[in-house]
Amino acid sequence: MNIEINPERNEWSKLIERPAVSNEHIQPLVKEVFAIVRKNGDKALQKYTQLFDHIAIDDFKVSATQIAAAEQMVAEPLKKAIQIAAQNIRAFHSSQENKAEKIETTKGVICWQEARPIERIGIYIPGGTAPLFSTVLMLAIPAKIAGCKEIVLCTPPGKNGSVNPAILYAANLVGVSQVYQVGGVQAIAALSIGTETVPKVYKIFGPGNQFVTAAKQFAQQLGVAIDMPAGPSELLVMADKTADPDFVAADLLSQAEHGADSQVVSVLASEDLVEPVQQALMNQLADLPRAEIAKKALENSRLLVIEDKEERIAFVNQYAPEHLIIAENNAEEVLQRIKNAGSVFLGNYTPESAGDYASGTNHTLPTNGFAKSYSGVNLDAFTKKITVQNITPEGIINLGETIELMAQAESLYAHKNAVTLRLKKLENEN
Amino acid sequence: MNIEINPERNEWSKLIERPAVSNEHIQPLVKEVFAIVRKNGDKALQKYTQLFDHIAIDDFKVSATQIAAAEQMVAEPLKKAIQIAAQNIRAFHSSQENKAEKIETTKGVICWQEARPIERIGIYIPGGTAPLFSTVLMLAIPAKIAGCKEIVLCTPPGKNGSVNPAILYAANLVGVSQVYQVGGVQAIAALSIGTETVPKVYKIFGPGNQFVTAAKQFAQQLGVAIDMPAGPSELLVMADKTADPDFVAADLLSQAEHGADSQVVSVLASEDLVEPVQQALMNQLADLPRAEIAKKALENSRLLVIEDKEERIAFVNQYAPEHLIIAENNAEEVLQRIKNAGSVFLGNYTPESAGDYASGTNHTLPTNGFAKSYSGVNLDAFTKKITVQNITPEGIINLGETIELMAQAESLYAHKNAVTLRLKKLENEN
Repeated sequence: MNIEINPERNEWSKLIERPAVSNEHIQPLVKEVFAIVRKNGDKALQKYTQLFDHIAIDDFKVSATQIAAAEQMVAEPLKKAIQIAAQNIRAFHSSQENKAEKIETTKGVICWQEARPIERIGIYIPGGTAPLFSTVLMLAIPAKIAGCKEIVLCTPPGKNGSVNPAILYAANLVGVSQVYQVGGVQAIAALSIGTETVPKVYKIFGPGNQFVTAAKQFAQQLGVAIDMPAGPSELLVMADKTADPDFVAADLLSQAEHGADSQVVSVLASEDLVEPVQQALMNQLADLPRAEIAKKALENSRLLVIEDKEERIAFVNQYAPEHLIIAENNAEEVLQRIKNAGSVFLGNYTPESAGDYASGTNHTLPTNGFAKSYSGVNLDAFTKKITVQNITPEGIINLGETIELMAQAESLYAHKNAVTLRLKKLENEN
Repeated sequence: MNIEINPERNEWSKLIERPAVSNEHIQPLVKEVFAIVRKNGDKALQKYTQLFDHIAIDDFKVSATQIAAAEQMVAEPLKKAIQIAAQNIRAFHSSQENKAEKIETTKGVICWQEARPIERIGIYIPGGTAPLFSTVLMLAIPAKIAGCKEIVLCTPPGKNGSVNPAILYAANLVGVSQVYQVGGVQAIAALSIGTETVPKVYKIFGPGNQFVTAAKQFAQQLGVAIDMPAGPSELLVMADKTADPDFVAADLLSQAEHGADSQVVSVLASEDLVEPVQQALMNQLADLPRAEIAKKALENSRLLVIEDKEERIAFVNQYAPEHLIIAENNAEEVLQRIKNAGSVFLGNYTPESAGDYASGTNHTLPTNGFAKSYSGVNLDAFTKKITVQNITPEGIINLGETIELMAQAESLYAHKNAVTLRLKKLENEN
């Protein structure tokens, strides 16, 4: 763990650096997989599933029977927990609905926006060591609230050729009926292009490894929207003397266990906190099943002491963390000056894991500094807004000359004429 | 103009096709320009401006004196028109501000979203035949309302080595002080990377030719956000017997004059409308300065008759037009069933040119069917939302077990421990 005490501002750009994640070397493979999926459809999915996942799959669609059967295979307490989380996520994302407000910009000129669901969306749930049923909730619940008509979930087949029951249970609970056992680049290609079995969608959501990330970038170039660019997960903890070193350490470790490439940064208000936080890290690390992964992540992580509060806030804004814990006195006041962050956790009793699972906020968030320009996934991510204008005869009389003058100055005479004709017609009528 | 009467549904996919706009052949050039701009900064901008624009520019920054001088060079009536348009655009985009609503998802668990401006944004205004001062208003006004701190405008140098006065006047009117005379791929590279003169930004907005489009796509791969993917401009007019054929023709021509690749589609409710619309097109075309361009666009355009109202609406939703005029009886009722469109114009007195300039809605809109997944530019495009959660001791007691169970089921024990530690501490305190 790299410790820096009151680093100079000119060192900050080094301290906010994330490891470079170029996937240029993967791009030719991605391009090829897309081309073959376009050409051969399901046959190509079978081929790549055999090649990359080492499993022969005939029918990618998970049957209604399989989905229903999953309910019996999930323990009751976990089902109850998933239900509570789903309820909170639903409550928070439902509160994000906006009413259309009609504005009369000029007498007789009424403008407004109307939200519409994106009709077909795709959700990618990675395979790997942990079955990410929580991500099913985070993506499918707002999609349902938005009113997306078709929700297509792809996830790699498990080693035994079937999908983890908790994933199927979560999907069924929130009303997702289209689940396909296909993962990796071939899944993103199928969602982007469509095959005999997997429908084409307009926007793809969800996390994934560098292959999935490269595939989503390629999909975007084909005109398919994606949720956001991806990078390794991150947490920054701001802590002053009101923080509890045990909690700080626990939160840092909960980020560190995600992967060896996880970014973990603590920004402490005083040198006095360094020793207790490090001690707590050591104590807790010993008991963790994923201690090896966490240790690797900690080796690359940073522990900074920045005594000046203004400077702490300025550093955080430059770093733009995915997750930000503010374990400081007057955390809400600090929040008001945070400009760049994905999701913020206030005070000592708001661990990051609450947001990962059950507080109700979304855990699909911008990493790698993208919080400077991207929101995390929210209800808006599943809708688009149509603008509407309704102009009365009085309105076009009021605004007509303005439009004519501007169109003429941009040398667009047909634009002008569309107004002139209407004004003439109204003149002749009077 | 291709005329189709009640085409079968299985022909629709052909009828909604846009001309393919692959820019793969440009990508190596884009990559090279970015690399050289990264290496040589301003020197590279000078080199490419000489090479592509055939002008030697020493200082790309347009001085405050030049910006102020522009005011004298714009005619008073046009200035007045620009001011009225600016006022309407400001009124409409200001109405899009959302208040943060705090939600208690579980007793003691409070969640909300807070909007923050994207701190640095870039605006690209193309050169070419028409000086697009209207686009300056459409992009800079919502940026100002959102509170973007740095707004950087790039536009190619004019033939005489200076920027069109109407562009400078519009920029100054809305408070943009950073204007740079640099265009094309090199401008997008400068905004993405930063040079000695041009600051790096986090998101780039604005239209452009296929070079600019390819450069924005490349910027996106580097992690710079962009407004949306681009394609040639489009208009679809729905018209029934309540429509005025002269107005329909005028609107179609106002789209057609944009460029030979403009997409113009009319969907008529009756064959009786075909002859009058075609006649009006011929009559009006004769008087247009850009008749040659418009004629070419019309050659590729489509005139469909779809008698059934449900079918007309279904066709429009499949096409997903950038601009949609509903010149039908009960236009608002039709609107309620429109799922995919960029901006909608209701009734006979709402020409597309009103939205292009002055009604108040934005004219930066999704083309090429992207209205299925993208909104046009609005206030949201200049902000991002941070989610926040604040959990009290009571809250973590209420929600703790749910989080522990889910974390454990995903094999993330440090996530679980961050909760367990807090619950223990609270137990010990009581």
